[in-house]
Amino acid sequence: MSLKLPNKTAGSLYVLSGPSGVGKTTLRKALLKKNSGLHFSVSWTTRARRSGEKAGKDYRFVSPEQFKKQILREGFFEWARVHNDYYGTPSKPVQAWLRQKRDVLLDIDVQGAGQVKRKMPEAVSIFILPPSREELKRRLSRRRTESPQALRLRLRNAEKELADWPRFDYAVINADIHNALKALIAILQAQHFRVR
Amino acid sequence: MSLKLPNKTAGSLYVLSGPSGVGKTTLRKALLKKNSGLHFSVSWTTRARRSGEKAGKDYRFVSPEQFKKQILREGFFEWARVHNDYYGTPSKPVQAWLRQKRDVLLDIDVQGAGQVKRKMPEAVSIFILPPSREELKRRLSRRRTESPQALRLRLRNAEKELADWPRFDYAVINADIHNALKALIAILQAQHFRVR
Repeated sequence: MSLKLPNKTAGSLYVLSGPSGVGKTTLRKALLKKNSGLHFSVSWTTRARRSGEKAGKDYRFVSPEQFKKQILREGFFEWARVHNDYYGTPSKPVQAWLRQKRDVLLDIDVQGAGQVKRKMPEAVSIFILPPSREELKRRLSRRRTESPQALRLRLRNAEKELADWPRFDYAVINADIHNALKALIAILQAQHFRVR
Repeated sequence: MSLKLPNKTAGSLYVLSGPSGVGKTTLRKALLKKNSGLHFSVSWTTRARRSGEKAGKDYRFVSPEQFKKQILREGFFEWARVHNDYYGTPSKPVQAWLRQKRDVLLDIDVQGAGQVKRKMPEAVSIFILPPSREELKRRLSRRRTESPQALRLRLRNAEKELADWPRFDYAVINADIHNALKALIAILQAQHFRVR
């Protein structure tokens, strides 16, 4: 008789979150390159596309009307208004992948991460921390893709978001991408041996 | 202001367990070689030393009288009677290491692992599974360090112990040592980023 662990009934859902400017996008892209079994959920957003971002790959860029329609038909797994823009994870692809026992990665804001954990406590939430508040400010200011007002708003929100890390399952300091990526890979590998 | 995660107040306690013959000792030794920050807790036992085992390094070999004295003075973190012999983890070194924020590894039987989890729910318990029941029997019979009666007893106990894996935090199938070791390393690394 085989002693194989019982088949998983679903894939694992990983939630990557943290304040703006902490380096989530770079980390997420590096992680997806290293881990071909991981499916990335493309979020919907009403904010303008930044240079370098690909529509349909980084985000699905939609109008506020489209976004609101999707809210009303309960089409979001989570959604949140952040910095005056809407962001949301469409339910269908995530649910379908998980049912097919695939692992799914969300790269979402701190509010949305809280919603996901409440809906699905077995999701694995990971908070990316900057090495210091000063470094986070530097990274946000370096970005220069936004107006001074938008930057100020992001800085203020970042302060609030930072306070949320103790509610996450894991916290990883992104001092350098190489070590932060190694940490993420270990967290995902370990999860495969988790009982239940 | 620094955003470093708050200092850990104690080290992590890892409990490696599983049925006799599954390869725990080989895995434990390989893990300790790879991870110099990990402290191994040497168990006490009343069983006879097997060839190749080093007193004070693999086990502390004591008389039944010494063992019972230690039980009565509440000197064990966990102890159990397995296959007619006593095995126990002395409390003092484990508690001292954890207070010094060091990580500690126990290599103990399934009963003892249950005691540790009840005493310290934050301990990380890992069950090592054989790839099949048949393979476990082969491994146990190959050992030849024991009398036929002792072997029969171990086989019977192994059956019971195998049923316990769902109560552990992690389960790793030891089909080949290389992959099982990689799994253990990932589990230990991930733990360092665990919140709380």
